[in-house]
Amino acid sequence: MKKPLIGVLGGMGPLATVDFLNKLIEETPAETDQEHVPVVVWSVPQIPDRQKALDGSGESPLPALYEGIDRLIGAGATRIAIACNTAHFWFDALSAHSTVPLLHIAEAAVARLKMNVSPPASVGLLATRGTLASGIYQARLAQEGFDCLSNTGEEIDILFKPGCYSVKRGEVAAGGYLFERAAGALATRGAARLILACTEVPIALERIRSRYLPICIDTNRALAAACVDYWRAAAR
Amino acid sequence: MKKPLIGVLGGMGPLATVDFLNKLIEETPAETDQEHVPVVVWSVPQIPDRQKALDGSGESPLPALYEGIDRLIGAGATRIAIACNTAHFWFDALSAHSTVPLLHIAEAAVARLKMNVSPPASVGLLATRGTLASGIYQARLAQEGFDCLSNTGEEIDILFKPGCYSVKRGEVAAGGYLFERAAGALATRGAARLILACTEVPIALERIRSRYLPICIDTNRALAAACVDYWRAAAR
Repeated sequence: MKKPLIGVLGGMGPLATVDFLNKLIEETPAETDQEHVPVVVWSVPQIPDRQKALDGSGESPLPALYEGIDRLIGAGATRIAIACNTAHFWFDALSAHSTVPLLHIAEAAVARLKMNVSPPASVGLLATRGTLASGIYQARLAQEGFDCLSNTGEEIDILFKPGCYSVKRGEVAAGGYLFERAAGALATRGAARLILACTEVPIALERIRSRYLPICIDTNRALAAACVDYWRAAAR
Repeated sequence: MKKPLIGVLGGMGPLATVDFLNKLIEETPAETDQEHVPVVVWSVPQIPDRQKALDGSGESPLPALYEGIDRLIGAGATRIAIACNTAHFWFDALSAHSTVPLLHIAEAAVARLKMNVSPPASVGLLATRGTLASGIYQARLAQEGFDCLSNTGEEIDILFKPGCYSVKRGEVAAGGYLFERAAGALATRGAARLILACTEVPIALERIRSRYLPICIDTNRALAAACVDYWRAAAR
């Protein structure tokens, strides 16, 4: 049997990948190097912009995502985690393409949400238009009996999207203040919990020590925890 | 021609690998995801302990290191960086095994040192016994006309080595205080600069905001900068 090995499809962006790897370490109970989760990481950011592809202004990232999956499997990955919410728009195509199972970030996040709060609480989604359009969170939340809130198109355009590109430029705190405004809008409308459904968001809110962190579900951390669960079960 | 791609041989330990990837981002002038260095990372920590192998109490990590090199090349790496100083003990064997060139961490660090200070300054080496025994720094420093200082065997046993294992256990600040004592001993003996010749050290000294940071050369950061230099030249 092949040794269990997590493949991380990253680079979207590079900082979110590093944040994911850091949380993978934090979520692993380990005393020595050897007890940590083995990973192979494909962090090749030369992949068409996901938000632009979904709003029709850029080419599809799908061929580049397929290549990443192929390289990870070639290197021996037995499970693949995609450290980007927006890329989950293409999850079904990637799953069909891959010969090893993919872990789903929304499934991991909703599992973590349920440890924190019970339905019928209102849950706010901090996400790109692409992630919202894909419905990966709304369907799972509705199924569990949660109400779902998201930012208006205007809030996304003037707060959320510029926040993402700030983080990608390395202006992490500036991104954090924009995300915090978007988070505040959802909290004001009654969200009891906020799902940070874009991997750039937790990095930026942590940087500014946002007041909303205590009610946030970090999807990057939830995906990391799902990887640890897989590995601990498989390595036994 | 194959597209330039940095392969990172990591997992020694996992946190040092994340620190390296973070510094790779910091060292890259980039406005968008797509301008960042493409990397494939092999971070499989199930590799025999390097320090134990070198003091004769554990098995050799060489087969596992060969496997990492092979997987990175299989995934398309065109240059390989090893994010661990102690593993450079086996650099010549790894170089002979690899079909793509390896970047050398000591070469990168001494290049960075020379931007900071001129010979015949005294330079302190914060390193494992294995790294000191390999002579990878001493030979390069002597060639450039620098004096070289290192911790005594006793300082290594009671400060440096426990510091490494603290970081590996996740007790990063505790490791930092131990490393700071080892650094202080070298500074007292006249070291004008300190080479942090173990990738666990900068993480820990940064965590405690050590007073010695202004005179430190971070080898992990220097190796990251060498990767950026390679990629920018190759991608042109």
